[in-house]
Amino acid sequence: MPAVSDARPDLDLLFAPRSVAVVGASTNVDSPGHDYVRSLREFGFRGPVYPINPKASEIAGYRAYPSLADLPEPVDLVISCIPAEGVLDLIAQCAGGRAKFLHLFTARFSETGDPRAAELERQVAERARAAGVRILGPNGMGIYHPAGGVAFRPDLPKAAGGVAFLSQSGNNAVEVVIRGAARGLGFGKVANYGNGLDITPAELFRYLAHDAATEVIGAYIEGVPDGRALFEAVREAATRKPVVIHKAGRTQAGARSASSHTAALAGSRELWSAALRQAGAIEARSQEQLLDLMTAAALLGRPRGRRVAVVGGGGGRSVQSADACEENGLEVVPLPATVRERVRERAPYLADWVQNPVDQSILAGSGLSSNALLEMMVESGAFDMAIANIGEEWFFGRPDAEARLRHACERLAAIARRSPIPVAIVLGATETPVEWQRRLVDTIRDEFVAAGLAVFPSVERAAFALARLAPPRR
Amino acid sequence: MPAVSDARPDLDLLFAPRSVAVVGASTNVDSPGHDYVRSLREFGFRGPVYPINPKASEIAGYRAYPSLADLPEPVDLVISCIPAEGVLDLIAQCAGGRAKFLHLFTARFSETGDPRAAELERQVAERARAAGVRILGPNGMGIYHPAGGVAFRPDLPKAAGGVAFLSQSGNNAVEVVIRGAARGLGFGKVANYGNGLDITPAELFRYLAHDAATEVIGAYIEGVPDGRALFEAVREAATRKPVVIHKAGRTQAGARSASSHTAALAGSRELWSAALRQAGAIEARSQEQLLDLMTAAALLGRPRGRRVAVVGGGGGRSVQSADACEENGLEVVPLPATVRERVRERAPYLADWVQNPVDQSILAGSGLSSNALLEMMVESGAFDMAIANIGEEWFFGRPDAEARLRHACERLAAIARRSPIPVAIVLGATETPVEWQRRLVDTIRDEFVAAGLAVFPSVERAAFALARLAPPRR
Repeated sequence: MPAVSDARPDLDLLFAPRSVAVVGASTNVDSPGHDYVRSLREFGFRGPVYPINPKASEIAGYRAYPSLADLPEPVDLVISCIPAEGVLDLIAQCAGGRAKFLHLFTARFSETGDPRAAELERQVAERARAAGVRILGPNGMGIYHPAGGVAFRPDLPKAAGGVAFLSQSGNNAVEVVIRGAARGLGFGKVANYGNGLDITPAELFRYLAHDAATEVIGAYIEGVPDGRALFEAVREAATRKPVVIHKAGRTQAGARSASSHTAALAGSRELWSAALRQAGAIEARSQEQLLDLMTAAALLGRPRGRRVAVVGGGGGRSVQSADACEENGLEVVPLPATVRERVRERAPYLADWVQNPVDQSILAGSGLSSNALLEMMVESGAFDMAIANIGEEWFFGRPDAEARLRHACERLAAIARRSPIPVAIVLGATETPVEWQRRLVDTIRDEFVAAGLAVFPSVERAAFALARLAPPRR
Repeated sequence: MPAVSDARPDLDLLFAPRSVAVVGASTNVDSPGHDYVRSLREFGFRGPVYPINPKASEIAGYRAYPSLADLPEPVDLVISCIPAEGVLDLIAQCAGGRAKFLHLFTARFSETGDPRAAELERQVAERARAAGVRILGPNGMGIYHPAGGVAFRPDLPKAAGGVAFLSQSGNNAVEVVIRGAARGLGFGKVANYGNGLDITPAELFRYLAHDAATEVIGAYIEGVPDGRALFEAVREAATRKPVVIHKAGRTQAGARSASSHTAALAGSRELWSAALRQAGAIEARSQEQLLDLMTAAALLGRPRGRRVAVVGGGGGRSVQSADACEENGLEVVPLPATVRERVRERAPYLADWVQNPVDQSILAGSGLSSNALLEMMVESGAFDMAIANIGEEWFFGRPDAEARLRHACERLAAIARRSPIPVAIVLGATETPVEWQRRLVDTIRDEFVAAGLAVFPSVERAAFALARLAPPRR
């Protein structure tokens, strides 16, 4: 793997190829061989697209060719959807500069546990090296890079951004992209590298570390052949931008499962945690944590300290918020005297009663809302971050629930947008049996997300994400 | 508190009063004094309802009376929405058998931190004892018991069931009822006891322990005046039915917040955990965990052992599922030989490759679905519980996504309904930017819930709940 020792691996044309051929392209709309071609069209890929299929004349609107040898020019990227048996021959066709990168969607190599399949994979690596072709995969869905017009599924979000994601698993990459988009993440360079035969996560990390378009890096890793190289690459990346890593296959059962999935050797949980921490990465232990951490990193940035202001919801929510913040290592500091004095001017009886977290229910009739308190708190200089609970269930019980909830959320959005500290918004998980309430919560969440704000379904998840991004405790 | 020493506290008429008076009833539709009266109408309360308001002739369709003294008969339950200053006088009016139970929605007592308010609360307790009136509250929303026609908000779910819930916090009770209903929980007796001045959580637990209509008990507790009595009561209840307790105010910040909320002294986290475990209760550390545990207890019951079968989703999901199960202490045992042989008959190449968890992506083209594997596994006798991942993001990318997803979910529902072991269904958190996908997931979840099945938004949450309900590890 010659590129591994370079400072900046040359993977530009993998993520942003000037031309793409899809070998095993298909007219069957229910097949990956069709999806890869159609994706290029749907994502507006600007260069030539060459479906390769000896029996078709046209696929998804592009002229089809019988073989790679029939193409009018060399291509930057070949995507392979053919069976494993044909891959050695395909590599021969890519040799001599006919293709720079070969992405093997093709699977059933070492991950099957079959020794013959593992031997074939070894030969693939050897022949590709000799042919001067870089391999992504096998057993991976490849590249999703909306700004470059490349995607592994035609239905994925078209919006682009600065969040990169590396994933050993394909279905996990799809889930993270779809769920992340719903949270407001705009994705840049996403790679699903599968068995990681040639282009490894370490090389991809080093590339993204130096990629100016990449602002945040997330990764899902089951196991790696060379832990030391990955560790160095993660460290290189983490000095430049936030890096969040979901390490799966941490348990014995998880490692067994990883081995049959991508033939990965998973390694011990404690070792990985320590290494990730030392490398400056933030560790996630589930996809949910990964998405929460990427959302916080991309939309809120790192808080300067650990002092948290919490407002909203009733008394029970305040107690639960305080527990969640402190158990995650945030400092639920008292309300500063300056804020108490501002409260005293408007509602004297509240001035010595109200606390951080602010219990919204005791504000009733005072003329002060939790938004008013939030505004005083974020402006006070006494906090490094804020969590705003909406507590929509309270609104649902009032007349004009929709108008009131909308009004409160609009004001909250305005405060959060101009706040000098990160403000995480907690809008419940839409768990209500009432249809209009679900739709309303969904709509409001979409509006927050469109405004670039970070929304979490529970205060526990908001506190977790903010705490992991904050500087370590003294 | 004389009733505390009885075997079964006499609280029947608190939850199912034959007549109710609402003092401080209001014609203002945006006030609790209106909501309590309207709730009785909306929930079809069968006995007489007496709104008390000297200035109104009628409230929510019921004839209003100027005072308790003007009522034609004594009442079982009086709900007080008047300010704290009027409560001593109200107790005097309840004396002499005029009212059995007085629920004080009225707040601003000891929870304010004001010594005069705390002294007033002390006097309330003393006078009520002398007057022979039992007090629920103060500073609590009181009773929600849909089968008895009583509720603290008119918009709460009307469906009734066997799940009881005790909550120190009112807004938390509302959230748990609404969110629980969306998960399929049918509630029976729910009490929000606020400051717990007279009727304590211990007494309520003992009542529910012996209540034949109560099948599962959940509770949200910030702190208690008498931990020993609560411990004994919880133990009494837990020998008879599953008990799930969310103890909040575990941290210093949480305890401070609890004190300003319901004047509760919260007590240390470790002490509580040990006591709950010893009493046989299952501890939740967040509302989310509480709801997951109540859902599992009510809809799945306790598994007989810790061996888990997992199917569905792609390879990444399988690895993550294995991690989640093992980290929660479940046993991800290998696929039994009997199942492998059944697989071999249909797809020989899969028989030695497929594992538990079953990676759905390797089944493609085999004629076997994850539902087929699930059915073999639940029938095999080798597992004590199953988790079925749906992995809806895969379906979203296929033609006829809706029809295929619906078909798979219908078959899954049929298998889960007749399974001899509990089957938890994992249907993602509806986190997609695409409107039709959200609606479809919501609709399918509602259909599972209507069929009495337990749905969790992630495999981690399903594994957590099942593991806590399973017998302890040997």
